Amino acid sequence: MKALRYEHQQLRVADVPTPEAAGEALVRVTLSGICNTDLEIARGYAGFEGTLGHEFVGVVEQVSDMEGGLPAPGTRVVGEINAGCGRCDLCRGSDSRHCVNRTVLGIVGRDGAHAEFLKLPVVNLLAVPAEITDEQAVFTEPLAAACGILERAPVSDDSQIAVIGDGKLGLLCAQVLATTGAKVTLVGKHKSKLQIARRHGINTSFLDQIKGQAREFDLVVEASGSPSGFELALDLVRPRGLLVLKSTFHGATEINAARIVVDEISVVGSRCGRFAPALELLKTGRIDVQNLISEEFALSEGVRAMARAADAGVMKVLLRP
Amino acid sequence: MKALRYEHQQLRVADVPTPEAAGEALVRVTLSGICNTDLEIARGYAGFEGTLGHEFVGVVEQVSDMEGGLPAPGTRVVGEINAGCGRCDLCRGSDSRHCVNRTVLGIVGRDGAHAEFLKLPVVNLLAVPAEITDEQAVFTEPLAAACGILERAPVSDDSQIAVIGDGKLGLLCAQVLATTGAKVTLVGKHKSKLQIARRHGINTSFLDQIKGQAREFDLVVEASGSPSGFELALDLVRPRGLLVLKSTFHGATEINAARIVVDEISVVGSRCGRFAPALELLKTGRIDVQNLISEEFALSEGVRAMARAADAGVMKVLLRP
Repeated sequence: MKALRYEHQQLRVADVPTPEAAGEALVRVTLSGICNTDLEIARGYAGFEGTLGHEFVGVVEQVSDMEGGLPAPGTRVVGEINAGCGRCDLCRGSDSRHCVNRTVLGIVGRDGAHAEFLKLPVVNLLAVPAEITDEQAVFTEPLAAACGILERAPVSDDSQIAVIGDGKLGLLCAQVLATTGAKVTLVGKHKSKLQIARRHGINTSFLDQIKGQAREFDLVVEASGSPSGFELALDLVRPRGLLVLKSTFHGATEINAARIVVDEISVVGSRCGRFAPALELLKTGRIDVQNLISEEFALSEGVRAMARAADAGVMKVLLRP
Repeated sequence: MKALRYEHQQLRVADVPTPEAAGEALVRVTLSGICNTDLEIARGYAGFEGTLGHEFVGVVEQVSDMEGGLPAPGTRVVGEINAGCGRCDLCRGSDSRHCVNRTVLGIVGRDGAHAEFLKLPVVNLLAVPAEITDEQAVFTEPLAAACGILERAPVSDDSQIAVIGDGKLGLLCAQVLATTGAKVTLVGKHKSKLQIARRHGINTSFLDQIKGQAREFDLVVEASGSPSGFELALDLVRPRGLLVLKSTFHGATEINAARIVVDEISVVGSRCGRFAPALELLKTGRIDVQNLISEEFALSEGVRAMARAADAGVMKVLLRP
């Protein structure tokens, strides 16, 4: 089968053996999405070698008998990306996202989704309701990541929230937070991207305008992926407020830790979220993902697609095997 | 009256007019304690000019009639150091510690406690119970700061806690946390200081030994005041654990923000705490502050006392007017 692989510091579409289910489920990939994490891996930042990709929708091809043959072959599925050891306290507490021995689809020790087939433990798979198209379902993973904020931050309908970064992650975060009734302001620098948010009733502000609202926000979500976003977030959050770090940026970041202490700010990291609430949201049709798609490529054009995804201003690039 | 002042980039004991109560309470200072914040101000880091000092015990000398004459002159008192505007939401919610327009005793816009007299709003004063000596009461402010951790972090008797830094702040934090029944380990590099903690049933570890316990702690308190302490704290805290920043250090700190995101760690700043729980703890005699006192100087020797307080390994230096 074809797979988009990063190996020996090189990105290419290669022919590799189709994986065997071997106690897990084999899934035929219908669509996969390119994430910034894929771009970072292909820059050699993460130490991963193998097939890239962790955002997908697909159809179950084969399930090992050990699992009782469920979900049945033919089921349309998405899949949580962390596969825990199944034995530690975290895994037994149904949260393998932090299992120390976990593998992560296309990120840590497990081939990913930019391929014709992938495999994942059966427990990771969720059936996709019929109301959700493939083009929507492929956003389940990043939307779950946005929903993950609600696991980490108390939000009510009188919360004043700023989301920094008008990329696809920021747009998803702003939409998810707005579903709670909170007052959400998306901060960015791209007129066309901010417009997407405005169409859904979200306030928007350009980077240089928001500075007049220093210390006004109960919750600030950093989703720009840049160290200057972190600095701005510290400016915007009120004393004793909450700052959620949503995007990873590599290398060391300079921060003014004294401000965290003096203003008693909480800085909370948030990475993956649960898939079930994300599927529920997609089913309601309240989350606009259609406008976040920039382009679709055939998997065989994967290298070109990755280059496109890295271009300034480009949002989600999809791959179709 | 005599006062230890920092002005025009110079530290000296000066003769200044005794303040007038003018709607507040005038307090005759019995003892004051030198804090690292005083040392930082005297290095010009904080932009404050005036009389230093915010840790004190004293006796009410005069109260303006507007306040009904209470607490009565002669009452032995300690005082919360933040004086709010009294009108904003925070002040009306009884937490003037974050009032944007607050003054802070010996730190922001208000002369401090290393003087024969100071003034503070009446609402800031708390009477000191007879069971507490002056030498204990002068620790109320830093002990309240240690108690402030409990306002910011959920601690139970099965919490695994590491406190980084065996200075006076770390020793107070470790003792306060140990009163909850939690398993507390104090991490430092001074045998004699760690011994103080061990005498009170607290586990201790040298800096280089603790590294084997990476990711084992639910809660890590950074009280070393050094950027390397922050880095170590990130090493020790478990995924989804809590890191409390207790000490300020000036300038930018390099941190690996990606670790906060990937391991979904919460970083929480903690500065001041309420005085009432600190006085309660001092009354029980369970907190050893006596062994944290290095030396006492006369106020007239204030400049020499500050130099002494800055020496390596020295703990609390007291000033007696």
